[in-house]
Amino acid sequence: MPRSVAAHRQAVAELLAGATPRGNRRVPLLEALGKPLAVDVYAPLSLPPFANSQMDGFAVRSQDIPDDGGQLWVAAPVPAGAAPAALKAGFAAPIMTGAMIPDGADAVVPIEKATPNSFPDATRRDAVVDVPAVAPGTYVRNTGSDIEKGALALAAGTLLGPAQLGLMAALGLATVEVREPLRVLLVTTGDEVVEPGEELTAGKIYDSNGTLLEASMRQAGLDVVRAGISDDDPASLLSVLHRYTRNTDTPVDLIVTTGGVSKGAYEVVRQAMSGHAVDFLPVAMQPGGPQGLGTFNDVPFLGFPGNPVSCLVSFEMFLRPALSQVVGAPAPRLVRTARLAEPLTSPDGKHQVRRGTVAGDGVLRMEGGAGSHLVHALARANALVQIPIGVTELAAGSEVEVWML
Amino acid sequence: MPRSVAAHRQAVAELLAGATPRGNRRVPLLEALGKPLAVDVYAPLSLPPFANSQMDGFAVRSQDIPDDGGQLWVAAPVPAGAAPAALKAGFAAPIMTGAMIPDGADAVVPIEKATPNSFPDATRRDAVVDVPAVAPGTYVRNTGSDIEKGALALAAGTLLGPAQLGLMAALGLATVEVREPLRVLLVTTGDEVVEPGEELTAGKIYDSNGTLLEASMRQAGLDVVRAGISDDDPASLLSVLHRYTRNTDTPVDLIVTTGGVSKGAYEVVRQAMSGHAVDFLPVAMQPGGPQGLGTFNDVPFLGFPGNPVSCLVSFEMFLRPALSQVVGAPAPRLVRTARLAEPLTSPDGKHQVRRGTVAGDGVLRMEGGAGSHLVHALARANALVQIPIGVTELAAGSEVEVWML
Repeated sequence: MPRSVAAHRQAVAELLAGATPRGNRRVPLLEALGKPLAVDVYAPLSLPPFANSQMDGFAVRSQDIPDDGGQLWVAAPVPAGAAPAALKAGFAAPIMTGAMIPDGADAVVPIEKATPNSFPDATRRDAVVDVPAVAPGTYVRNTGSDIEKGALALAAGTLLGPAQLGLMAALGLATVEVREPLRVLLVTTGDEVVEPGEELTAGKIYDSNGTLLEASMRQAGLDVVRAGISDDDPASLLSVLHRYTRNTDTPVDLIVTTGGVSKGAYEVVRQAMSGHAVDFLPVAMQPGGPQGLGTFNDVPFLGFPGNPVSCLVSFEMFLRPALSQVVGAPAPRLVRTARLAEPLTSPDGKHQVRRGTVAGDGVLRMEGGAGSHLVHALARANALVQIPIGVTELAAGSEVEVWML
Repeated sequence: MPRSVAAHRQAVAELLAGATPRGNRRVPLLEALGKPLAVDVYAPLSLPPFANSQMDGFAVRSQDIPDDGGQLWVAAPVPAGAAPAALKAGFAAPIMTGAMIPDGADAVVPIEKATPNSFPDATRRDAVVDVPAVAPGTYVRNTGSDIEKGALALAAGTLLGPAQLGLMAALGLATVEVREPLRVLLVTTGDEVVEPGEELTAGKIYDSNGTLLEASMRQAGLDVVRAGISDDDPASLLSVLHRYTRNTDTPVDLIVTTGGVSKGAYEVVRQAMSGHAVDFLPVAMQPGGPQGLGTFNDVPFLGFPGNPVSCLVSFEMFLRPALSQVVGAPAPRLVRTARLAEPLTSPDGKHQVRRGTVAGDGVLRMEGGAGSHLVHALARANALVQIPIGVTELAAGSEVEVWML
């Protein structure tokens, strides 16, 4: 009985959770972009740090103004960045957006509601302004109204994007502690596979899995160690894997291989893992059904199938969500529904993952057929189309779940 | 009459389109990740490069097999990567997934449909296999069925992600020509603004705009030159801008400033741009209404407002979409609809952009109020909520458009 997609994803998450946690590293804010925060961060100051004006206008003492408005003397102006003198009774201080509310003032009258509706020459000492009545607190951003000093600003595990780093900066923090990225060893296998740029002889194909997966893994925040292409001799593969796991001071945290996991006569990964704690099992998914999972020299091990579309689907359906769940990065893929432009069929007993393009109107067109070798079609797609187990036919116009790439 | 959001976005796109195009650069595939392709790429070979098997099974000549099945001699096996001998009449060749279909063969019988359903010892010369009748082409991936040699593989301007780079690798290409990123000068302004990590005195705030925008710009593929914080003296700002535009061999391609663009008494960017070809205008948007746009020393210039939320909204609503349109990167934000968890109001005559969190069930909760200083609330949000001009009240449960961050 093949394992379900959800069960295999959970198994991958548990495998990653069992990996030795790497340390943390303190880095300047911009270096932390896209990385998960290592520790809870508490606000070292309140935001805003002081009550300030939300408008260009006049800071006033609301109790000075009668219900039908009143006239006030104009005090010295308060520019942003200044620490103003206290506001005396009967005065209104010209104040700029973001400038500190003077002691005594409790509200701001916007400049366009004052008469005259422009600021007097700052050198005049006898200017007056007519202002309407105003409720206490009007157009005042209170100290701590965004976050109070000492409150939790960001929780450990938060993915640090522009807004989160902007918050750290607003709190005055110039550096941040992030989790060290996981280091993954990526090995593509197969006698038929040749590095791009080399000569292609009869029967050979270029390795696209290495590039496709390294790019995916980098975008997901992993440090990728490429060990090139291993041929179909299990001894070659084992020697590579031993080198990065045992005979080193810095073993990798994860091994991912491609190819050699199905039931043919020359399955190098299955053969090499014989005697190691790696299971090879069918997952009820198409493409990407045959999967290897376990540990090699105590390092978590995933064996993906050899076709490029199967590799991408294996990464997106299993490893990437497990990283989001366990490591806190990358952000999960956005899930939405889309309407099929054309009918489709799906094999019985399998969760099928097709490639498609969702247009702005939510209509989904398939890119290529089900074949797992269709990398040109894959390159046109912007979404993975999820056709659950048990669904074998869908009419045009049906709603399906898609994961946006 | 304030300018509409769409009109201002178009003005920003036109401004960028008028920038001097930077050159192209040939880089290894992985360095091209997230960058736009500079030139059309045509397939130097077909994919697949040769007809190959979609299954582990037997390559056969379909005309050799009677309608009710037949017995064939077993030929030498064809592993992936080999160039097999032609298949003689009356023979079936064990073949692995991805291996080349021998000359003469035109179909594959999967191993599980053969009798016996396993491959014989490869050293035997007298083995036979019973196979069912099969239509020509069955389980054969034809040469060029994904892409034909000479066809357009990827168009200039395509954003290069894992799948696109995987396609380039499959085509044997080890390097790719990408557009040089635009170089943007980012200057935050204000007497009240202090660098994170420095001491904060009364009335001052930490600069979050610089970090927030640099992170956003980096994610969007821009090269960012930070010129620190300029105070409220127009001469200081002008001296910075001249340094990166005139007195250099490598002028920046774009200038972005923050702050100093509204109608207060100390608007440093407005003052400094007096006499330069920069307009300051209201856009009917909240926050981020006051905007500057033009050129300074012939370099495209954008003046964003000074509050951090206004900066992010200005970037996401104007600059980022313009980059997607003109440069080809980054990918546009995903747009979806969500249902309001709570009612909300929006100012008359403005397109309001609120921050919110869309949960898996499509329900949207607001993060913080409308205030443009609420950077902690912003850091919790995963979406920008778009409330069009003319909509002033929305009930709980209403559908609204959101842009996923």
